[in-house]
Formats: sequence, C-alpha cells, structure tokens
Amino acid sequence: MTVAGPLTGVTVIDLSRVLAGPYATLVLADLGARVIKVERPGSGDDARQIGPFIDGRSAYFLSLNRGKESIALDLKDAADCEIFEGLLARADVLVENFRPGALARLGYGWDALHARHPRLVLASTSGFGQTGPYATRPAYDIVVQAMGGIMSLTGHPDGPPTRVGTSLGDMAAGLFTAIGVQAALIDRVRTGEGRHVDVAMLDAQVALLENAIARYLATEEVPGPIGSRHPSITPFESFATRDGHLVIAAGNDRLFGTLCGTLGCEALAKDPRFATNALRTQNQPALKAALDPAFARRATAEWISALEAAGVPCGPIQDVAQVISDPQVAARNMLIETAVGSDAPVRMAGNPVKLSGFEDPATRPGAPDLDADRARILAELDGD
Amino acid sequence: MTVAGPLTGVTVIDLSRVLAGPYATLVLADLGARVIKVERPGSGDDARQIGPFIDGRSAYFLSLNRGKESIALDLKDAADCEIFEGLLARADVLVENFRPGALARLGYGWDALHARHPRLVLASTSGFGQTGPYATRPAYDIVVQAMGGIMSLTGHPDGPPTRVGTSLGDMAAGLFTAIGVQAALIDRVRTGEGRHVDVAMLDAQVALLENAIARYLATEEVPGPIGSRHPSITPFESFATRDGHLVIAAGNDRLFGTLCGTLGCEALAKDPRFATNALRTQNQPALKAALDPAFARRATAEWISALEAAGVPCGPIQDVAQVISDPQVAARNMLIETAVGSDAPVRMAGNPVKLSGFEDPATRPGAPDLDADRARILAELDGD
Repeated sequence: MTVAGPLTGVTVIDLSRVLAGPYATLVLADLGARVIKVERPGSGDDARQIGPFIDGRSAYFLSLNRGKESIALDLKDAADCEIFEGLLARADVLVENFRPGALARLGYGWDALHARHPRLVLASTSGFGQTGPYATRPAYDIVVQAMGGIMSLTGHPDGPPTRVGTSLGDMAAGLFTAIGVQAALIDRVRTGEGRHVDVAMLDAQVALLENAIARYLATEEVPGPIGSRHPSITPFESFATRDGHLVIAAGNDRLFGTLCGTLGCEALAKDPRFATNALRTQNQPALKAALDPAFARRATAEWISALEAAGVPCGPIQDVAQVISDPQVAARNMLIETAVGSDAPVRMAGNPVKLSGFEDPATRPGAPDLDADRARILAELDGD
Repeated sequence: MTVAGPLTGVTVIDLSRVLAGPYATLVLADLGARVIKVERPGSGDDARQIGPFIDGRSAYFLSLNRGKESIALDLKDAADCEIFEGLLARADVLVENFRPGALARLGYGWDALHARHPRLVLASTSGFGQTGPYATRPAYDIVVQAMGGIMSLTGHPDGPPTRVGTSLGDMAAGLFTAIGVQAALIDRVRTGEGRHVDVAMLDAQVALLENAIARYLATEEVPGPIGSRHPSITPFESFATRDGHLVIAAGNDRLFGTLCGTLGCEALAKDPRFATNALRTQNQPALKAALDPAFARRATAEWISALEAAGVPCGPIQDVAQVISDPQVAARNMLIETAVGSDAPVRMAGNPVKLSGFEDPATRPGAPDLDADRARILAELDGD
C-alpha cells in the first residue's frame, strides 16, 4: 500500500480518530511510512461518518487516510489485545489522540508500554496536553483556535470573531506531532529507546502566534484583528479589482515605487505621507483610499500580469475551484488522485514535502475500508 | 548554546532569512539541533530590522532565532566561501530560502553541493517551489494565503477578504520543511546520503485546505467563508456573552441536549428543526438566533464554568494578553524566557513538542547578535 519514501521501513500503529492524529500519520504515510489504522469494530474512525460522501464513503475520511491500512480491534477484548500487542512488537511508533488517561485505562499507558516495547515511540496528541490543569478537558478545533489567540487576530476591526477557515487547531498539532515522532526516531538511532511525544493543540496554537506575543510585550498594546493587512508592512494587503480581489506585498520603498508606477499613480510615490514603510503603515487608510480607485479600473488577471512583469509580489485571491485548476498546483503534483478498490478515483491535496531521489506520484493508494487489511496483517503476525 | 534534545548532535547551517526558513530551524533548535545562522555582513537577517524593538533589538527576530548562533559571511568573497565550505563539511543540514536559482548562482546548487558533501541534506523553502511555471516569482505570506485558497475560506459571508491573522503561509512551510529535513536525516541512516528537500509555501497552503477540496469535489459548490462556524457540525461556533465571546463545540446529539439543559433552553433540544446534526446545520441561523439571548445573560467565565461542569466542549475567545496569562499555557511552559547577553530576559512562545526524557526548560538561550559566534566557530574549524 505504501509509497517509497524517506520513511520506508517505519511502521506506525495509529489509534487516532478524526483529524489531529490522522493528519500526523497522513504526513508520515506520504513520506513512506507504513501506517496501520487500528479502528473500533463496527463504526471505525468517526471521520468515516462525516460528510460529504462520494459513492457512499466520506470524502473527508478518504482525503485524510489515503495510503493507510485498516484493522478493526476491540482493545477491551483479550484476543484482540493479543493481536494489538503483536502489532506493537513489530512497530516503531504508536499514535493516539484519546483524552489523556484513556490509553492508560486500556493498559497502554506510557510506562507500561515502554516496559514491554522499549523501542516503541508513543505519540499522544490531545487538546491541552498530558499535563496541566486543563489536561482532561475536551477540546475541538474551534476551542483551541479561541483559547490560543488566533481568533483574536483574525478578522476585521470591529467585526465579529473569525475562525481560521480550516481546522488549523487540529492540523497544526498534527504537524508538530509528525515532527515529534521523527525527532524521537532520530534520537532512537543513538539511544535505542523510544520516547513519549506529547503534543497539545493549544500549545501548537501558541507556537503559531508569530509576532503577536512580541508585539504585545514590546508595546503593551493587545493586538487585534487587522483584516487583510500586515501589522507592520504596507502596502501588504488585499484590494478589490474590477472582477475580484488581489493581494500586494510591497515590502520596501523600491517595490512601493514600482507599484505606484505600474498603477499610474506616480504622485503617491513622492507623497511625504508615504515616504517610508513606517509612514505608509501609519497612514495606511489614506494610502488604501488612494490606491483603491486604480485597482478598480482593471480585472484581476490584467493587474496580476502587469504587476508580475514589474516584479511586484502579488497574487489573486483564489477560491478552491481556482486553486485546484492553478497550473502551479498541477505542476507541483499538489492535486493527486487515489483509487479505493475498484471505485472511481478521488482527488485530494498531494504531499507538500518533495525530496530528491523519491517519486512524488500523482496517483496514490486510497484510504482503506474498515478492517480491509485484517487478513493480510494477521497472516504477517502468524509468519513471525 | 543548544538545549539537549532528540536532535542533539545534528548541525544545521542556516542561510535563511525572515520567517519560513528561520521558523523551520527554530523548531529544529528547540529539539536540540545546533543551528548556525550564516548572515549577510553588515545588516544580517532582514528580520533584525522588523519592529517592534526591545532594547534596540527586534522582538520579532529574537523570538524566531532563540538558541541559534550567528556568523557573518559574504558568499561572494573567496575567503568567506572557504569558511562556509568548512562549515558545510561538518554539518548535517543546510537550510535556505532564497528565490529558486539564487543558491546555484552562488555555486551551491544541489548537484554541486551533493558532489562535494554527499551526506549533507539541503532544504530549500520558497514561495512556489523549485519547479513549475511560477518557480521564480517572488512570494510573501499574504500572496500564498491568497493564491492557496485559505483566504477564500476565512472571514464572514459577504464580508471583505480576510487574511489569517498570523503568517501561516510562512510558518506552515517552515513546519513542512522541518518535517522534510528530519525525514531526510532518517533516510540518511540507511542510505548514507543526503537529499534535497523542496518545500513551497503555496504547496503547504494547499495541504492545509482540509475538507474544502473534498467538499468542492463532492458537491461542486465552491466553499466560501463561514465566519466562526464549522461547515458541517452545529453548534460549533462563537457566541457573544455579557462581557465577551466564547465558542461551543457540541458535535453530537447528546452534547447538544446537555448544552440546551445548561443554558436553560430545554425546549430547543426537543425542537424537530434541531433534532439531528444535519438538521441543526441546515437550520443554523434559527438555532443561533434561539441561543444568542441565553448566552447574553451571563459573563464568559460563568458560562465556561457551567458548561465545563456539564462536559460541553467550550472555551473563551482569548486575546494575546489572556493567552499569555492562561494557567494551562504556564503549566505547559508555552511562555518561556530568554536572555540576550547581559540584557533583560525576553518572553516568547515555548516549544510545543514535548518528549519524555528531555528537559523542557522555561529559560532558553537567546538569539545571537550578528556575527556573535564568529570567534568560537572559526576556532572549531581550525581545530579540525
């Protein structure tokens, strides 16, 4: 099932459900790891029930679990636990995103696991982490986006609170989990021992606040939402064109001059209110008001090609339909196709980590039906 | 300078500037890698000039470069190139985020580098990647947020385009770069050879579109911005309270019933319009209108404690000042302190990847002044 990659030979047992954990193991699978989903008998990963559906299968589940295998095991059943132990004995990594404490109650807490399988890496992804006063609270994406500060920075001044339009709370934790798993595997080469990786969705949000903490601590002003602007670089924002929107990133005086020339607004480049980036940022409303009429005169594609020719960093604001038909996205294999059994192929985002010496196939193995790989996995265990 | 971690013993030479590359090497440094910034003589990393400033140093630069070392080298100067070659000969990884082609023009293209230093991993982070029709275009965070689709999903229906309030375009690429570097290091254990890791900011955005591509392909409806709601789970959104905002994530019928009971809106739980998640999602405006008056009656903290006691996933929408005084953030060491030379400590986000067996210090080494480590680095090279 797996694609050859830098992690070929690494086996990951994946107890995780829905998004944060499955996103981490998707990244690992894309890099060549063998990922075996151990799912609850009957219903499996909750994401299998989340619509929309393509030919009766969750498109969401399919896009998060391509290239993985599935076996259904009940970890409260002794015979299934024996199979699970067999899997762990042959594995390098176990990934889980239960509420902290739940895995230990099943008999697979870190100390017990590490004693039985000293080389196994355990990665636990949770809302708030394995420690601290909120450890056992339930968390979902929007909860950590809210508590972690990014919602206070996203949106328009005086507008309602705004969630980042994808589940960044889960996916950021998934990325840090993949990083922690790989770090533990690198460490294991030297020490021969596995580690427990503990990644919290809330921590991951804090780690992505970028300059907001520094701005607050340096100025004591609480950063708020600033729409589509950069907090300290101007013009670095969106403008309406005749038929849509584009963004400009003119980060220095030279680019600002070029931008003004391209727009036919040469006078602005000489205006003392806009002479430096600091002044442009201070006088951003006046500058935007002066630039708006120019952008409104032509279509997005016309402005993009004129600005590109002049060397001004810019781009159209694309919707999902435009993204998936973008020639660069195609050239980078960022829209791939999978097949599930004999069904029609399903398209989804590709692997963004490209490495020399490995194929980056545009067709990848699909996601498994629940328990689809049981017979083969059991035969392998019997073969030991 | 480095903190012991799973990547102890890994040496990274870092030519990258500003954010995407430096964020990748920050992640690696936090995990124990030794990161040596090779900066342009005179001005160094452009981020050193980005405000606000604390004691004359860029708070932005300090927060992205803690625990790294610095040497200033001019890669167009023969003597400096000799030093650089000496660094590469002892290093495991070279990270760069020049425009594609620029490194090769300096004599450090992948083929040449790989021939001279076969074990060295090269990680190139760029706006659009090393290949494809846009490869040499300039890109900044807002450009890839626009072109990659996330701005089309973020914000309120009928509202203006909205940028994610942090530089997710850069940081997501930084995370995938750290993942690619570690994957190449794991591969090298088996093959003895380095790889070229090629990560594009645009690709990283596409990889984070989550369910948007699946939704579009399954339904042929182009997903738009949905404010603070989840596209397919309800209620999973924000509400105004008497003194602020909170979010609720009631993902199933049982939690919806508990929510209604806690709010004193028992009748809503029996309302046929809200009987299932699909119906609640379809009738979200009516449900929100019914819940709004209840939430407005009490303060955020009162509702949070009542909802938590009832087991309904929820959280306050916190600003940056609230985030950095949150007890869970403190308990997880997610606000750490660094010192630069003899100056006052600077606070910033901590390391979200926690591993058993390694300290997670609340005080970490600070960021280097330009060229601060020159003498020691040169002495090490002489010692070879």
